[in-house]
Order: sequence, then structure tokens, then C-alpha cells
Amino acid sequence: MARIAPLSGFPELLPAQRYVEQEVIATLARTFELHGFANIETRAVEPMDQLLRKGDTSKEVYVLRRLQEIDGGKDAGIGLHFDLTVPFARYVLENAGKLEFPFRRYQVQKVWRGERPQEGRFREFTQADIDIVGRDDLPFHHDVEVARVMLEALARLTFLPGFRLQVNNRKLIQGFYAGLGVTGDAIDEVMRLVDKLDKLDPATVRQLLLDEAGVSEEQADKALALATIRTTDDTFVEQVRALDVTHELLDEGLDELATLVRACGPLATDTVRIEADLSIARGLDYYTGTVFETRLDGFESLGSICSGGRYDALASDGRTTYPGVGISLGVSRVLVPLVQRGVLSADRSVPSVVLVAVADEDTRFEADAVATSLRANGIPCEVAPSAAKFGKQIRHAERRGIPYVWFGSEVKDIRSGNQVAADPATWQPPTEDLRPQVVITSNDTETTEGKSS
Amino acid sequence: MARIAPLSGFPELLPAQRYVEQEVIATLARTFELHGFANIETRAVEPMDQLLRKGDTSKEVYVLRRLQEIDGGKDAGIGLHFDLTVPFARYVLENAGKLEFPFRRYQVQKVWRGERPQEGRFREFTQADIDIVGRDDLPFHHDVEVARVMLEALARLTFLPGFRLQVNNRKLIQGFYAGLGVTGDAIDEVMRLVDKLDKLDPATVRQLLLDEAGVSEEQADKALALATIRTTDDTFVEQVRALDVTHELLDEGLDELATLVRACGPLATDTVRIEADLSIARGLDYYTGTVFETRLDGFESLGSICSGGRYDALASDGRTTYPGVGISLGVSRVLVPLVQRGVLSADRSVPSVVLVAVADEDTRFEADAVATSLRANGIPCEVAPSAAKFGKQIRHAERRGIPYVWFGSEVKDIRSGNQVAADPATWQPPTEDLRPQVVITSNDTETTEGKSS
Repeated sequence: MARIAPLSGFPELLPAQRYVEQEVIATLARTFELHGFANIETRAVEPMDQLLRKGDTSKEVYVLRRLQEIDGGKDAGIGLHFDLTVPFARYVLENAGKLEFPFRRYQVQKVWRGERPQEGRFREFTQADIDIVGRDDLPFHHDVEVARVMLEALARLTFLPGFRLQVNNRKLIQGFYAGLGVTGDAIDEVMRLVDKLDKLDPATVRQLLLDEAGVSEEQADKALALATIRTTDDTFVEQVRALDVTHELLDEGLDELATLVRACGPLATDTVRIEADLSIARGLDYYTGTVFETRLDGFESLGSICSGGRYDALASDGRTTYPGVGISLGVSRVLVPLVQRGVLSADRSVPSVVLVAVADEDTRFEADAVATSLRANGIPCEVAPSAAKFGKQIRHAERRGIPYVWFGSEVKDIRSGNQVAADPATWQPPTEDLRPQVVITSNDTETTEGKSS
Repeated sequence: MARIAPLSGFPELLPAQRYVEQEVIATLARTFELHGFANIETRAVEPMDQLLRKGDTSKEVYVLRRLQEIDGGKDAGIGLHFDLTVPFARYVLENAGKLEFPFRRYQVQKVWRGERPQEGRFREFTQADIDIVGRDDLPFHHDVEVARVMLEALARLTFLPGFRLQVNNRKLIQGFYAGLGVTGDAIDEVMRLVDKLDKLDPATVRQLLLDEAGVSEEQADKALALATIRTTDDTFVEQVRALDVTHELLDEGLDELATLVRACGPLATDTVRIEADLSIARGLDYYTGTVFETRLDGFESLGSICSGGRYDALASDGRTTYPGVGISLGVSRVLVPLVQRGVLSADRSVPSVVLVAVADEDTRFEADAVATSLRANGIPCEVAPSAAKFGKQIRHAERRGIPYVWFGSEVKDIRSGNQVAADPATWQPPTEDLRPQVVITSNDTETTEGKSS
């Protein structure tokens, strides 16, 4: 056996850690299905010409070739997908005649990027995406819908830190710049520069606006003023109006964003908040209206862990255009740092509620029969691997976090030591013992980053 | 957008087809967890030196390189896994200090092989594996356990054709050949040739045994006689004894196989059978005791769709050896032919039980409130995308297979036309409507292969 070592950027989880991930994915899936989203999976590979449509991500693609193949063989044109949006757009076009629109789908799959690994960045990671795609048109109320569905899903992940969903609207930004008198390519350039406010201070961005976008001082000041507006309700509208800029597209964007914030406000909980943040632009993507980003409380350095927006042309075959709106949660991006630092785990490493003890190998069949009875009632269990001393069998359960050990006609809660007579045909554990529980083992946050093991 | 076409060997499913796959995977997972198997996932890639340990599969590996990387860069040494056993063995070694042994795990993931695509063979497909791995030793009762767990799981897949689990034991075969006087490398050679009985007629195999393995006519005849033995109970033992061959290893193999068959017999159902089939050898793999293969009734041309066995050295780091026993179900191999031929589907393409109709856009909030009430009771639903005429909204539900449409304060079962007053806070559909149902749309089997669409 060759040398064994982890591969940087390809995180793997131990069983109790994986249980946390399964719980997250199951919670997301349950919420998405309650809202009528159907699950699909797409193949891991796409033709390279599909993957390279966005020039700026080309460096991140893993290209495949068969081992026995001469370079440039007929398979040389495929690579691993780097997101779930490109494959979904292709799936919609390929199956358009067999799908019903508007089509709601969720997709939870691994994606791959040949990036340099660093904190929160992986070469293989899991994303959970929801999108709604229409044929020819897609009413704005679907933008509200995807935001509400994702907020509801995040609110159910009660063992995670809080989430802050930040929303904005490209029409609002572009209409505002147009109303300021910025025109043509300069609109995109201003948007690109303002998007740097999360890395550069306002004075530097202002200078770049003057030098690189060639706008006036007044235009630069108002563009920066717009980007500082941040409200948890629709009062951002007055603040924008106070900047005294008017444009039809601005009105449309203000109206859409106000509708979104008002509709999402009632879903806010202790751990999930929504805010209109007029600095959010998702500069490099092809969004045309609503845009989403999300910050994880205490882990702001991870950047946005749940992003998306409205594409007026998610896909097009030249004759028909498919507008879409969607949002993508970086499951690994949120979870891997938390489980690897030990902040989150499960209270056992196996699904088993009960270890059925074996008195001696000749009576293993009796233990098997107890286990079969318990399973018939939906109770996961396992039979001891050997007829060791009972103390050793109890330690076997303890090491795995299994709460109960069954001896003959009695069951012992090894946490309390309480042992009672029980019939395997009718015994039931308390509901909370039936499945492993996710446990928060510390309140480690970004402030202690690097200090924890 | 570039030309869109399916990639040969990379099957994808429509939403209703994917639902069937989800049901299969959920049923398997539920059964595996009832028996204490913990889920893990391993990364999609392994170092090439791990993947090439079995020389005969090297041609099937997809090698990865980053697009911007010069060939031979530091990533050139990774490829996509072609099964879940090689990654699992590596995972066990890498995490041996953090795992509890015997370690039961199940793993449901995609694997990739750069094969020439053909019926039932894919370049990307899903496998579901269970394995039990011990440290230093692993009692034989775990061989019985994995067989029983997989039989129980297959028996729950009632919408699939029947399964026939075929079991044998390498010790039995090798001990028999040794008892015949076949020695050294000739034992493996005889096993390899006898394994061809599923493709070649007995006379041809007999001639090969004489010519290539260099055994005597009596040895060839007895080796062939052994391979014809097939029983659904432990009577194979008498039949082997009647061939008048004795060897200590043969006795051990007979005893293990008889124990396995007796322990699994009671799990047989209408659709799941077990048989001792003494022709099964899994020739090219490194099994050392129990071996499993499985045939799907009516789809025998698919070959074995669920295989495995006992490895005395699943993994080893030179100091410690980890014996294992496991079995791997080819989920795609079984399902993709059935769903693509239309034999299996789901009765709706969305999770939604109810479509909430919208009377006009100004009252969409009322429909949203009904949907929120239904979801609070665990009822998946969606709100109509537009305030179209009610007839059009009903057709919207029909096309997706959604059984109920909600109008104001009434709910209509659009299958029966029955419409009743209902309160969204308390209404419940019949349990069988709560989730999509897998439906068998024809009894298409291999006899009609090629004729169906």
C-alpha cells in the first residue's frame, strides 16, 4: 500500500462529522420539497466549450483524459463542472421538451475547482442550489419565492451560526448610475469598482472611480453614497430618493427590492436576518435584477456563503430564452470549517441506538433475534462483535456513543446506569435517542481562528 | 450557447425518474442504518498510484489535470475513483486512529470508468456499498451479516424485479482443487478458467483446463462437476462430498458456506432468493473466503449487479492488517435501464401534493398564506405561477401529476373531480398522496429488450 496522506483541498469527514452534513442536506431537501422543488442530479462532466463560456473561471477547471488515451483524443473535450448553474442551464436546454415550466429544481452535488487551496476554499466541495426557470418569461414573484425558501431552509439549521441574507437589485444600481448620467460601458466599470468596497477603503475606490471609470466627483460621491445604504426594511427607498437621482430603471429596481424585503421580513428569526445592502453587485456574474449574498455570523472572512440572483437569460437555444432566478448555498464552505475545528459534531459515530450484548458465541442467535425485533420497530441497533466480558461490551458501546446496551431481557441506559426489564417486541427509546443529535461543542468563532486545533 | 447533446455513458434522469433513484437510495440507507452502518463519503479523486494497484483496471481510469497546468504538474498524479473499495481502504488507513473497529460503513457515491459505453455499462454511475472492516481480525459472522443486510435491503425494493444472490467461498474452491492435487499457480489458473463457464460451454472450458492449466482429465472433470452444483439450501455439502475430495481448507469453506446459506435462507421472499452457486469465483478480485454475485430476474444480460466478498487484507499499513467483508450494489446499473425504458417512473414530477390556485395577482398573498399553512403541516405544495383561468391552473397541476388544487376555501381532487370545503390549517391528504409513488408502467423484461423505446 502506497503512502497515505490527505490531499489538500479535498476535505473528508469522519462518520460523526458526516452525520452533521447529512442533517444539513436532509433539512435543506425537506424545505425545498415542501415548496415543490424537484431534485435532479447532473453528470459531473461537461464539454469544455460549455465550461469555458465564462472566461474568468477557465483556470479553475479540471480536464479529464482517459489514462490509455493519447492527448487530444475524443474525450479530451470534457472537464469536471465547477458549479451547478452551467450544468443546469445545459440540462434545461437538453430536456426542454420534457420539462414543465416554470421548473423548480434543487440540486445538491459536489463541484470541483483546480484552485490553490486556502481557508474556506476547496478543490472539491458540495453546493446546494435552488432555481426556478421559466420559458420566455418568469414573473418577479419567483425572485421573492427563492429568497423566502432559502431563508426558511437556513432558519431550520438551528445548530449553525446566524445568517445574514443581503439583497440588492441590478436594475436599481444600473438605473441609479444611468440617472446620474453615467452611460455605456462606464456603468459596468463603476459597478465593478464599487464592488471592491469590501476590500478597499472608500477613498481609494473614489479615486479609482475618477481615474479608471472617468466619472465626475459628484457621480463618484453619489455612487459611493448609494453603496453605503443598508436597511433591514424598505426605508432604503427614502434614502435613495434623498440622493435626488431619477431614472425609470431605478424606479423598477427600487420597487422590486422593496417588494422583496417586505415579503422576506416576516421570515426573520433569531438566527436569520435579511437586509437590503446596496453595495452588493455580484460584479462578475451575469445577473440582471435581484442579487443575493449571505454572510455567516462570526465567519465573515469566508465571504458570501450563499449567493445568487436573477438571470434574464439563464439559457437560450437561439429561438427560446429561459429566464431564471436561483440561489446557491456552499454547504462545504459553511460546514467544513465548523466540523474540522470541532465546533459541530454528532453525539454518536454510528446510527445504532442499542448494542445487543452477546453472552457467548453459542447464543449469538438470541442476540440476533433481539436485534431483529428492535429493527422491526425502526430502532437501529448492532450486535456485539464478540462475547467479551460485559464491561468490555459496554465500553464498546461507550466509545461509539451508543446510549443503550441490551442484556438478555433487560436494557441499560449506559449514560445513567439505569437498567430495566424490557421486551424487544415493544420497547421504544425516547424519540430524541432514536437518531444521533448534532451537538455544538464550543462557541468557537472567527475571533479565535487559528487558536483552536 | 454551444451545441447541446447527451454524452454517451453519462446517463441523466428526468425529475420523475430521479425520484425513483432517490427512493432506492433512501430505502437502502434506511436499512443499512437499522443495522448500525454509518454513512461516509470519500473524495472523488485518489492518487494514481492507489488507483493503479490493480493493474487490470488501469485502462478505465480518468486522469485529472488543471486546465492551465503544464502536463506533469503536481496535480498530474490524481484520477477519479473507479470503485468505492479502493477509496474506503485508503480512508480506513488514513483515519485508523479515529475509527472504532469493527467499523461498519455504507457509502453511496458516483464512480467513473473511462470504458467504451455499452448496454448496462456507464462511464459515470452510482454504487451503494456496505463493508465491515476489523483490525487484525474479523469473525466470520460478519460475512453472514453483510449478506443478510443486503438481502433485507433488496427485499424492500419491491418495485424492482426479483434478485438472486449467489454465494460461494474461495476456501471451498481452493481447498477442493488442492484436495484434487492441483497445486501452486495452477489453482488460480483453474479458477480463472472455470469462471469462464458463464461465457463458454463446458466442453471448451474442459479443453482449456487440460491445455492451459495442465490438469488431468479427472481433475478437469471434477472441477467442472463442482461448478455445476447449485442449491438453495445446504444440500450442496452432500453433493460436494459425493465428489470424494477431501482437504482441510475445503472443510472450512463448506462449513462457512453452509452457515451462510442457512442463516440467509429465512430472509428469502417472493422477490429475493439466495443460492449456493459453486461456479461463482469473482476470478480477478482478491477475495479470500465468501464471494457474492447477484442476478436481476429478466435482466441476466446485465451480469452481476451486486457483488462482493471477504478480503483478509482489505487494507494494511505494513504493521496492522484490516480484514473486511462487503458487498456493492450497482444502483445505476439496475435502475438506468429500467427508467430509460419507461418500466419505472413516479406518478408525479414534483414533490407538490397541492397546487394553490391564484384568483388574481392582487390576492396572491392569500394563496401564499394557504401554502404556508399546508407546509406547516408537512404538506408539500406550490402556488400557481399566474392568475390564469382556473381550467388552465388545473391543467398546470395535471401536467405535473399534482393530485389536488386548492381554490379559496375548497380543495379539489383533480383525479376524481371531488371538491370539498377545507381548512388549510387542518386539512390532510391521504398518506399515500403525501409523497410521489413509484409506478411500474409495464412488465418489460429482457425478452422485449430492443423492442421497447
